[in-house]
Amino acid sequence: MEVNEFTRIGKRLFAEHLVGGNFGNMSIRTGEESFLITRSGSYLDDTGDLVRVPLFGDVPSAASSEWRVHRSVYQQTRHQAIVHAHPPCAVAASLVYDEINPLDSEGKMFCPTIPIAVGEPGSSELAEDVADCLALTGLCIARGHGTFATGKTLEEAYLYTSLAEHACRVLSIANSFR
Amino acid sequence: MEVNEFTRIGKRLFAEHLVGGNFGNMSIRTGEESFLITRSGSYLDDTGDLVRVPLFGDVPSAASSEWRVHRSVYQQTRHQAIVHAHPPCAVAASLVYDEINPLDSEGKMFCPTIPIAVGEPGSSELAEDVADCLALTGLCIARGHGTFATGKTLEEAYLYTSLAEHACRVLSIANSFR
Amino acid sequence: MEVNEFTRIGKRLFAEHLVGGNFGNMSIRTGEESFLITRSGSYLDDTGDLVRVPLFGDVPSAASSEWRVHRSVYQQTRHQAIVHAHPPCAVAASLVYDEINPLDSEGKMFCPTIPIAVGEPGSSELAEDVADCLALTGLCIARGHGTFATGKTLEEAYLYTSLAEHACRVLSIANSFR
Amino acid sequence: MEVNEFTRIGKRLFAEHLVGGNFGNMSIRTGEESFLITRSGSYLDDTGDLVRVPLFGDVPSAASSEWRVHRSVYQQTRHQAIVHAHPPCAVAASLVYDEINPLDSEGKMFCPTIPIAVGEPGSSELAEDVADCLALTGLCIARGHGTFATGKTLEEAYLYTSLAEHACRVLSIANSFR
Repeated sequence: MEVNEFTRIGKRLFAEHLVGGNFGNMSIRTGEESFLITRSGSYLDDTGDLVRVPLFGDVPSAASSEWRVHRSVYQQTRHQAIVHAHPPCAVAASLVYDEINPLDSEGKMFCPTIPIAVGEPGSSELAEDVADCLALTGLCIARGHGTFATGKTLEEAYLYTSLAEHACRVLSIANSFR
Repeated sequence: MEVNEFTRIGKRLFAEHLVGGNFGNMSIRTGEESFLITRSGSYLDDTGDLVRVPLFGDVPSAASSEWRVHRSVYQQTRHQAIVHAHPPCAVAASLVYDEINPLDSEGKMFCPTIPIAVGEPGSSELAEDVADCLALTGLCIARGHGTFATGKTLEEAYLYTSLAEHACRVLSIANSFR
Repeated sequence: MEVNEFTRIGKRLFAEHLVGGNFGNMSIRTGEESFLITRSGSYLDDTGDLVRVPLFGDVPSAASSEWRVHRSVYQQTRHQAIVHAHPPCAVAASLVYDEINPLDSEGKMFCPTIPIAVGEPGSSELAEDVADCLALTGLCIARGHGTFATGKTLEEAYLYTSLAEHACRVLSIANSFR
Repeated sequence: MEVNEFTRIGKRLFAEHLVGGNFGNMSIRTGEESFLITRSGSYLDDTGDLVRVPLFGDVPSAASSEWRVHRSVYQQTRHQAIVHAHPPCAVAASLVYDEINPLDSEGKMFCPTIPIAVGEPGSSELAEDVADCLALTGLCIARGHGTFATGKTLEEAYLYTSLAEHACRVLSIANSFR
């Protein structure tokens, strides 16, 4: 059941080129004590089995290598779902700006300031910084790495991801007209 | 029946990257008194049930939040169908220009001047400005927001949308050669 | 039978974003006296019935409005098939350059100089200029309009189209690195 | 069996726009003496029969015209699979830079320096230079031509291809913000 919903969202992430290869990962909170995350190396449009990770304690080795970020977010916020993707315009913008201020109307309405988190992929530093950002807002970009978007559902987190890339793409194209 | 046609057009809008996520909306006029519009939050490639909105009077809460623009257009013009999408090059161009003058031959033939409408998404101001633009032409861009394209059918409105994005993409890429 | 091949090629043209909406058209020579062309307003990925056009004399009204170019090419050259598409990078490049000299290895090998033809879409002037270009080479771009690519088969004409857009896209992106 | 895996990877290469038309080719090592490569002119998402090429001696004429590069790599390295694609950002970057240093985190982790190989497509010079590059790393770009990526499996080689294009796309877009 959950796999179907993960796969449905994953197919949309691919169709919009928000993720490529077997990059990116997704998770949903399951009760008070754990969350379900995609497997390390799995394709978001064809996830196969998901991995249950406890909020504290040992983590199954099959879990996405990005489990640290997801766990920190679930520990420190009330978000119910997380989508991590690698949208190219958002990643590029995060290399140049310290925060992103969309000019398109959806960006201005839903994410007027997109913070940039720092730290190596998989590190505790990144996990902490992303969790700090996501305690205040629904969306951030790990510098040079990718978006972490949250929501009440996986779908909402995907929509923030789409929104972030659209905002950054519009910023990039607008520069071509100047 | 209508749902099938909405979905057919929606799939083409997605395939051409003219819309992402659950953004955008579409409607067709139904007789003298009402129009059918996509639901708030629905995906244009998988619309589910449509919502009937009267030209005057109360609006069902399920209707797309953009119903105000659609209603103003149907009240003030004879257009039979409307497609609202978020094509990134058109949105970016609308941030920089006060009107868009395509250089490609289809743009020059079918929409030699694309007006830019202003106003917050969902506002009466935007609804009025879009309706004013569309009283004179088949296509406009709400600044920083997206295209509103009209036609005798949903298909014609989609084709104007595709045309607008192509025109703006060509303008953007042409600048890369200068 | 032919429809299947037209549709197979049309789907690839769409998947590579070489054409959008119901733009573009395709034809194949059939014997000494006529050619088969897509209908006016048809989608290249779903062509429906094709229209037989004689090399001389009256043209059925259902034929693509671009029949004049196709007929001139079949009258003046030995090409067996034509694909006309609207690839955005090729169209943009044709607005800026008088001829295109690819820098990528396939472009250098298969179309080292891509000529630019001029004239309004549908005009005799364009038909003549495209035919003149295609008497000397397999591929040209109608300025601001789109590619006309030829071949022994529809597939070969499609491959030239893909090649032309790739060459122009590479030129555009290379400029972003300079 | 192998054809299915080739086709699965080919479909992903197309969906990410890493290859277009019937360009690109793929191979896997089969034992000590030979490898299986895609046919000349075949589509990577619909490969049809594969061609067995010996590591030394005569090469079947049906083999991809790029067999020379694949054979040199299998002769001089231990790589088990090769994917050759034409991703536009990687090709464009290879025209401008002598080596590529990604700024995105996956690029920095998995291919911190992407070497550029030189030589005409199909030539011994290119075959030697690519093999030299791939003796030291998993991925290189033939200047103006395309990526050659390797791995233990076809999938791994595809993932390097996707990674290379993502890295170059991010570099290109980042420049639009500067």
